[in-house]
Amino acid sequence: MSDMVEPLGITDTASVVGYNYHFTDFWYLRVDPRMAGPAWYRGFRIARVHDGDRRLEILDRDSHRHWQPVYAPGGRWTPGEAVTTHVSTHNAVETSWDILAAGDQPAELWRVSIRNTGESTRRLAVGLALILPAPSPMGCQTWWSSPDQRFFSRSVPFHGGWEEYQAITRDPIDTFVSITPQPSDVCTSARYAGAFLRGDDGAGESVATSTHGDAVAWNSVDPPAVAARWEVELAPGAVAEIHLAITRDATQPVPCGTERWQAARAAAEDYLRRYGGYLEIRTPDERLNEMVNGALRKELVWSARLWRNGISTPWRNELQDALGYALWDPDEALPFLEAVTASQEPVGYLKVWNTRPGERPNHPLVNSRHNDGGIWLILCWALYLRVTGRWDCWTHPLPFADGSVAPLSDHLLRAAQFSWNDRGAHGLVLFHDGDWTDPMNGPGRQGRGESGWATAALAVALAELAAALRLTGDPLTADTLTDRARTLHRAMVTHLWCGDRFACGMDDEGKRFGDHEDGRIFLNVQSWCMMAGHAVGDQRHHQACISAIDALRTPWGPRLLHPSFAQWDPQVGRLSLKVPGMTENGSVYCHGSAFAAWALALAGDPDTSLDIILRTLPGHPDHHTAAPGVPQQLPLYQPNSYFFEPGHPQSGTSTGTLGTGTCTWIMLTLFLHYFGISFEPSGVRVAPRLPPTWPSASLRFRRAGTDFHVTVEWGTQSAVAVHGSPVQAQPIPWANTERQVIRVTIPRMHQQSGPLEAASHP
Amino acid sequence: MSDMVEPLGITDTASVVGYNYHFTDFWYLRVDPRMAGPAWYRGFRIARVHDGDRRLEILDRDSHRHWQPVYAPGGRWTPGEAVTTHVSTHNAVETSWDILAAGDQPAELWRVSIRNTGESTRRLAVGLALILPAPSPMGCQTWWSSPDQRFFSRSVPFHGGWEEYQAITRDPIDTFVSITPQPSDVCTSARYAGAFLRGDDGAGESVATSTHGDAVAWNSVDPPAVAARWEVELAPGAVAEIHLAITRDATQPVPCGTERWQAARAAAEDYLRRYGGYLEIRTPDERLNEMVNGALRKELVWSARLWRNGISTPWRNELQDALGYALWDPDEALPFLEAVTASQEPVGYLKVWNTRPGERPNHPLVNSRHNDGGIWLILCWALYLRVTGRWDCWTHPLPFADGSVAPLSDHLLRAAQFSWNDRGAHGLVLFHDGDWTDPMNGPGRQGRGESGWATAALAVALAELAAALRLTGDPLTADTLTDRARTLHRAMVTHLWCGDRFACGMDDEGKRFGDHEDGRIFLNVQSWCMMAGHAVGDQRHHQACISAIDALRTPWGPRLLHPSFAQWDPQVGRLSLKVPGMTENGSVYCHGSAFAAWALALAGDPDTSLDIILRTLPGHPDHHTAAPGVPQQLPLYQPNSYFFEPGHPQSGTSTGTLGTGTCTWIMLTLFLHYFGISFEPSGVRVAPRLPPTWPSASLRFRRAGTDFHVTVEWGTQSAVAVHGSPVQAQPIPWANTERQVIRVTIPRMHQQSGPLEAASHP
Repeated sequence: MSDMVEPLGITDTASVVGYNYHFTDFWYLRVDPRMAGPAWYRGFRIARVHDGDRRLEILDRDSHRHWQPVYAPGGRWTPGEAVTTHVSTHNAVETSWDILAAGDQPAELWRVSIRNTGESTRRLAVGLALILPAPSPMGCQTWWSSPDQRFFSRSVPFHGGWEEYQAITRDPIDTFVSITPQPSDVCTSARYAGAFLRGDDGAGESVATSTHGDAVAWNSVDPPAVAARWEVELAPGAVAEIHLAITRDATQPVPCGTERWQAARAAAEDYLRRYGGYLEIRTPDERLNEMVNGALRKELVWSARLWRNGISTPWRNELQDALGYALWDPDEALPFLEAVTASQEPVGYLKVWNTRPGERPNHPLVNSRHNDGGIWLILCWALYLRVTGRWDCWTHPLPFADGSVAPLSDHLLRAAQFSWNDRGAHGLVLFHDGDWTDPMNGPGRQGRGESGWATAALAVALAELAAALRLTGDPLTADTLTDRARTLHRAMVTHLWCGDRFACGMDDEGKRFGDHEDGRIFLNVQSWCMMAGHAVGDQRHHQACISAIDALRTPWGPRLLHPSFAQWDPQVGRLSLKVPGMTENGSVYCHGSAFAAWALALAGDPDTSLDIILRTLPGHPDHHTAAPGVPQQLPLYQPNSYFFEPGHPQSGTSTGTLGTGTCTWIMLTLFLHYFGISFEPSGVRVAPRLPPTWPSASLRFRRAGTDFHVTVEWGTQSAVAVHGSPVQAQPIPWANTERQVIRVTIPRMHQQSGPLEAASHP
Repeated sequence: MSDMVEPLGITDTASVVGYNYHFTDFWYLRVDPRMAGPAWYRGFRIARVHDGDRRLEILDRDSHRHWQPVYAPGGRWTPGEAVTTHVSTHNAVETSWDILAAGDQPAELWRVSIRNTGESTRRLAVGLALILPAPSPMGCQTWWSSPDQRFFSRSVPFHGGWEEYQAITRDPIDTFVSITPQPSDVCTSARYAGAFLRGDDGAGESVATSTHGDAVAWNSVDPPAVAARWEVELAPGAVAEIHLAITRDATQPVPCGTERWQAARAAAEDYLRRYGGYLEIRTPDERLNEMVNGALRKELVWSARLWRNGISTPWRNELQDALGYALWDPDEALPFLEAVTASQEPVGYLKVWNTRPGERPNHPLVNSRHNDGGIWLILCWALYLRVTGRWDCWTHPLPFADGSVAPLSDHLLRAAQFSWNDRGAHGLVLFHDGDWTDPMNGPGRQGRGESGWATAALAVALAELAAALRLTGDPLTADTLTDRARTLHRAMVTHLWCGDRFACGMDDEGKRFGDHEDGRIFLNVQSWCMMAGHAVGDQRHHQACISAIDALRTPWGPRLLHPSFAQWDPQVGRLSLKVPGMTENGSVYCHGSAFAAWALALAGDPDTSLDIILRTLPGHPDHHTAAPGVPQQLPLYQPNSYFFEPGHPQSGTSTGTLGTGTCTWIMLTLFLHYFGISFEPSGVRVAPRLPPTWPSASLRFRRAGTDFHVTVEWGTQSAVAVHGSPVQAQPIPWANTERQVIRVTIPRMHQQSGPLEAASHP
């Protein structure tokens, strides 16, 4: 989308980890450097259409050479925003294979062109195949319909209840695969597809293979596949083009061909343009610009609109993803925040785990009680108002889970009250089955353990809510909440402060962990206590927390905890059984790193903050230097985490997974702190904390009808100008102009002034 | 085990379906013609150790040729009872690869020998690998320990609850793989294992690969594998031998090597000898002899002792499997019947679906209410007493689910009473969520539908129970039950008889199906109504039922129903969504075929009965003739069913699955009808119904301390002799002799006398 991003092309697929992805609201597919990767249809339910075994094979009928272009040496994979392409030239045959998710139909399209680059005529058998998922005990039927030029495959899920089958017409269970031109041969059995593509004569005997394009190749028994072969004769320089389209949608035909391809591609580009919103940074760091303006935006659109393709998901993800998405498109993001809010109980409680309507819960944690639903509800809404300026939402009536209705402000106050009441004997928020760190299911299992992170996060949330109340005319309630935030912070200091770090929490017996006794440092509790200290104006522990975070430093950013757990620890629970160095058990967990970047920016250390962000993003030069033998994360999205264990040769390996709160918190740190932009009901406030290494930076984004162009640069004194005219007081009134050009100068000395003052954000 | 069975050796693996299998009570593995197949450890819980991707690869260091012997042309696969072997000679290197489940330890052992059959010295890299299952979100750690000469792989399951992890020490989660001799190189990553085995230099760079046998090759990130390479130099004729052992048992080391192999193999053979019991037939049909004396026995031992390797399983399977097992070993089979009985509720109800203690339910049907639990309880116990002579069990005290205790007879009477009360408006047994045909969840979903099969089966069960009561001195209760059996049969005739068939049942609205209106014939209801008619002395419908069964005829035996359902039918339910021709939706379902063989023997048609049995067993010559392009079921076990749909080119394809009630019912038909052997408290009765095509047949088996040798042959008149002395009256008293040689002569004319009379079985 952004003209700043050069398409990435790679040839050495073994040295990388990750995949490209394409999607609309109704289809999602992944495609890796070998063109493999699964696809899902997202209709009434989410259905996995295939597991990603896509094949293109070429057989030279004269030389009997057979090859798969994606394995041919020198092939080049180019993951574009809407289309992924693999090109290779082998045995004087150039193949180009494109894949996309159609923008105008729930479908996946392939385009393959084969060019004779040699000097003699070639006789080639070109084979395409898609291996379909193994059938359930209900079986699968797959056949070829020559008049329609398409395959049909029906696979009924195995549930058991009569009602589920009666309802099955709502779930598309048929996969349609169209191809053009008419193939020479087809095969519908995965048992024979390999031999069929290699041109083995034996495969012709298979009952699921048709060597005449007009037979049905009816497979009711073998694992299913759709495969076709085209016998083509190419003069030197001649090109053959083949198209394939996959859908689950029975209501419209799935045509394919050149015109269809072009329309589907244009629509796919349009989808991201329409739903991708607009926000663009220009900073001296090109890698940061590319990720923010390209990959992070795409990832946030996908995360928020598709709930990370989840069926059972934690609301904490959806709230943060929608908040990140809101930076690009406040209006498109809004319904996703509202949907979460509608599941809040009138008493204020928001259960974290949620299942997509009409689906069966598919995650073992779905019945867990985590303590942070309401905390995220407050925080994400309050930050949503600040980054979007949509303060009209404050009084919007929104439903509770029981159907009763109250203004947004009331939802947030009830959440605040619920979490305030949900504290334990030491005044800290109860742990229950876990906090943000959801595999920490040990400390609170008897209902008495208390969480440091949740306490700090509640203090931050209450302070944000208090600020919103002040801006909307309720200073009295705001004061109460500010007092409560202070009380929470005091309890943290009293019970969890260890002199050089905050402990992680207390178990049911009141025994602390993550303190001096076990010698473990937990990252998040340091970051959030810094945020909470900042919010209540107590900065006494900032420097020690910064040192604690520094002790967790790696080339990929700070570890989430150190040392990792080497064996089952009943106090901390499930987390301790994760592989040491993996995800929550001591990896560089990018979401936690982004929290730290935010906290360090607040605490007046934008240098370290920026360094963490740059190390968190894939492609930092130190990643390869520190772990040259480890496959590097492709910069197509922000991964969940980097494995890290001291001395372990695989340290630095990315999870390769798509979807993480990291995108949101990196973006918030840039928007709210580095650029220092915050909307209030009466206008926009700009108070940048530019990283000192940047001479200047600019940001463009749109709010309602207004394009904002904000430029920040160093100068001798603080100054703000709108359209060149100096502004004397903030907030700057938000006139309904088409364009608002804001230029901010900040004095160099400012950077030495230490932590931001609490009052500097409302 | 039996010296009659020649080991099967095959070279054309593409033309067959199925696998060999080896097991003890603590380990179960499968091995197909490519030596692939999964393995399970069966300890406190059942754990899948691997998914079956076993690899042996050879690399010639001089010619750089690389090959996998299981794919080399001319290789020969020999599935023995305790060991499976693959031998191939390629590039003048002979490889022999043996796999077994150790008899004395929960472990899987491999032995590989490599022989230079050429005339010059060879430098070979021999590679072995086992790809381990993809890890859960908890991750997996795999490493090599050189001092122990073994790999270690830990994979924690992802459940979620703290208690489950606290209990995890009860579940072995570590896999140990020992190898000998010391390898040259090792690799622990599935990402690199392929390249490693091919000898690619690049794989040496992988952090999970060690090119020095003493390093750890520590993999915490990639999908796990264990792979090793040995660099061997072989003079002409020289042999290298490599051993590998896989276990989950941390309490004892897993040594491997030649001695260990021999001991484990001897113990594996001993396991089947010890737990396989003894029964052997000699009939003119060699294929029947081989299957009964070899494959069926092994399958029944596996099915009964390992519950078909199930976690959530229907008791109807376990009851029938234990009954079949009892034919070989009454004492070993007994605890399995008793275990089922202990879950009966005091009110008489036996829930069909059951989950192995300590496990999580893993089947979507586990909460279903099927109507046949108590029916099978009665039938299987009553037949157990008849085939084993263990009439002492009749008064054995056995617990109910609530811990209260009653004699077996009381358990069965309560089951009888419960099912009698479980009838609907037409006096037929209620359908609930299904009967034997468990995907038939439509007819009874509102609680009023009634099942023809269950009604007939209850009549048969009550008649069997009545016979047992008469033999144990309670003729009064026996008369009541006989009356009830008659009432049930009358209700069948009144409401389900259609003139040429019995309808399958009635739905909640009282509407029949499987009748003239829908034109569908269901096999089981014909078979069981014949049995019920026989039991109550009403043979009026036999001939029509035989014709109806004949209308279902295929080269593989009768279809389970015809025509199959082509689309969702809310009346019948889930069954109708199965692929037409697959399993319950109209396949040749072998268990149903065996019921039919039993019914036809009872109805005086042993010819057709035997024909069905022979067509049901794999390897009938007509199978290949009727479907020459279809892979044939290996005769290593009886499969569940053969796909069948008229005109469909895949008709005759076996499910290839292991574990079916067919084995039991084929064996019961032979034992109780063809040989006509039935134990009563006072002795054994022998009343054969020999298939007319057999000139004679004999049967040997053991009961308590006695070996029975029964020979049946045609003569001019009925005569029974024991040790050569004519017997005047039956039952023959069962003296505690070591050997009981019984010779029975039956007159040829007998076969024309029509159906057996009801009185002929007690």
